[in-house]
Amino acid sequence: MPTEQFVDQAGATTPAESPSSTLSHRPLSTDERAELTPDSIMQLGLGFWGSKTLLSAVELGVFTELAKGPLDAESLRMRLGLHPRSARDFFDALVALGLLEREDGCYGNTHQGDLFLDRAKPSYVGGLLEMANARLFRNWANLTRGLKSGEPQNELSQAEDSFAELYAKPARLKQFLSAMTGISMGAARALAQLFPWESFTTFLDVGGAQGCVSVQLALAHPHLTGGEFDLPVVGPIFEEYVQSFGLGERLRFRAGSFFEHPLPNADVIVMGHILHDWDLEQKQTLINKAHAALPSGGALIVYEAVIDDDRRRNAFGLMMSLNMLIETKGGFDFTGADCRGWMHEAGFKETRVEPLCGADSMVIGLK
Amino acid sequence: MPTEQFVDQAGATTPAESPSSTLSHRPLSTDERAELTPDSIMQLGLGFWGSKTLLSAVELGVFTELAKGPLDAESLRMRLGLHPRSARDFFDALVALGLLEREDGCYGNTHQGDLFLDRAKPSYVGGLLEMANARLFRNWANLTRGLKSGEPQNELSQAEDSFAELYAKPARLKQFLSAMTGISMGAARALAQLFPWESFTTFLDVGGAQGCVSVQLALAHPHLTGGEFDLPVVGPIFEEYVQSFGLGERLRFRAGSFFEHPLPNADVIVMGHILHDWDLEQKQTLINKAHAALPSGGALIVYEAVIDDDRRRNAFGLMMSLNMLIETKGGFDFTGADCRGWMHEAGFKETRVEPLCGADSMVIGLK
Repeated sequence: MPTEQFVDQAGATTPAESPSSTLSHRPLSTDERAELTPDSIMQLGLGFWGSKTLLSAVELGVFTELAKGPLDAESLRMRLGLHPRSARDFFDALVALGLLEREDGCYGNTHQGDLFLDRAKPSYVGGLLEMANARLFRNWANLTRGLKSGEPQNELSQAEDSFAELYAKPARLKQFLSAMTGISMGAARALAQLFPWESFTTFLDVGGAQGCVSVQLALAHPHLTGGEFDLPVVGPIFEEYVQSFGLGERLRFRAGSFFEHPLPNADVIVMGHILHDWDLEQKQTLINKAHAALPSGGALIVYEAVIDDDRRRNAFGLMMSLNMLIETKGGFDFTGADCRGWMHEAGFKETRVEPLCGADSMVIGLK
Repeated sequence: MPTEQFVDQAGATTPAESPSSTLSHRPLSTDERAELTPDSIMQLGLGFWGSKTLLSAVELGVFTELAKGPLDAESLRMRLGLHPRSARDFFDALVALGLLEREDGCYGNTHQGDLFLDRAKPSYVGGLLEMANARLFRNWANLTRGLKSGEPQNELSQAEDSFAELYAKPARLKQFLSAMTGISMGAARALAQLFPWESFTTFLDVGGAQGCVSVQLALAHPHLTGGEFDLPVVGPIFEEYVQSFGLGERLRFRAGSFFEHPLPNADVIVMGHILHDWDLEQKQTLINKAHAALPSGGALIVYEAVIDDDRRRNAFGLMMSLNMLIETKGGFDFTGADCRGWMHEAGFKETRVEPLCGADSMVIGLK
């Protein structure tokens, strides 16, 4: 499948054990050299073709249109306003990538695409892809410059505070918050299943954006009440999202800044894709604030694309850290061992790392 | 592996048979829906991260530096002139992507990277990746605009003749020709093995760029003589490349334009990644010219990322056609059946399609 490289950490190559390492000090025989092809290198180097084909399909609303019913190539082309020259190649490329089905000349969604890429469904997670299409793809074109300078390479790179800037424009804010739902959905569903929620009654999702985690936890565990702590401007967007699930009674928005204010108390505090936005000192500040807001026996759950301790398997986590270079002034991703160390320094008694979904794991700290 | 989606055509999903099709008219059960995750969609959508990480590594000369010997992170960072902030994440991401090895804190090339991505080796195929990094990645950012307009989305889009423009600047020309070697090497090696060359004595590679195919054929078959037909400006670059393999005696450059002049005679005429650059009428003109230049019993070999006849497996070929939208005025890729049909119309007696390597196949026409 296309994305094994990122998803299946265990399946990733472990070069130290690889027979093809130039570090193994064993030169290849002529036959072995003859068998080498550049094919997989070429394919990865052009892998952005598949990404951008999907991103353009989301931008154009292909999956939203097909959710209304299958269409033949010409009808779909007209519906999307595409030129005849390449429309069919575009649709068939989406079929070959496993993103669309085609039967008797009619195109339709896969069940996966129908559930997650139809803008009309609450399960839509395309926000992240919309942001990747509108911002990240172009920003990543400047990766080399970022690696040389250590400076962000996005439209916010001149701003004093990237997030204040990002949150300043309502349209961009909503896209970003919806994007966070996209990147959190898989982990949020796993989080609802894999943590012993029966032993706790309240939770607080810190910097929870649209409210993806709060909603998934409330849907899975009727005994839980809680909510989210985020900047005031996020409030209305959270309320709207929560209401769409009819969970307004149990989920409450708490307005504030996690650097300027203390965190509200809760049995369990969740920080998802928050710590990686900030530099080391800021990360430690947030972990200390969580510790202060928890009761004895309470838990802090940090979930991210946590990098494997040996830093050689979770390619997605390592590249998410490069994305933090592109997008933030000092952010970086980290290993489970890094995060457990920071938690112990903050006074947490027990810590452990558990895989969630895809490249995401959670680091749990018990006070 | 990262790129199976493009490489293993047989392994690609065949949606018509897929149980997860919305076209199968069977709604999913609640349990089936609950098991769906957006993970693979998210990973593909962000797949450009892995591409650009490799492209920046080629741009920075990571593999060329490490070909001189393994280096620790700090030495490699200094050698490449990278900022400390993200250098280690960058190197370890390359390890996790299987592009570098790491042992005892020292980074080294894989044998594959050492052979194909070290600029100092004649087997270097990074030219395509340099072009992808310098041009295609940014041009593909405008894919949606191209799909709507049907117009090229590159820096040549205003030019009357893209290739005249592309060939006008020596640096860009050399990068492009070297890129063609990158994309042709795997297929060229397979072509040398899989065609019955023993039955023929002369060949002509039409539009052969740097000379990749001519060199691979001459290396594998000492009885063959031949060469390449391309625009005059390509001559010196071909000669230099051929001389680097000491094949100047058997490989000759023939200067000309395949639209303005007839093709020189040869037992076998090869056109690799040529036909897809042009519109239907131009494609047929080139096939007719090849037929005219061949003796009875001679062969035309067209090799490209030939699309499977059902247009649902070769994602790479279908997206190569989108790349022709981005890069050319009327070019498009095609199926084996399309090409065999054009060959029969031109008078070829027998035609067949044979897989070469990765997404590439050859269409053979016998006169």
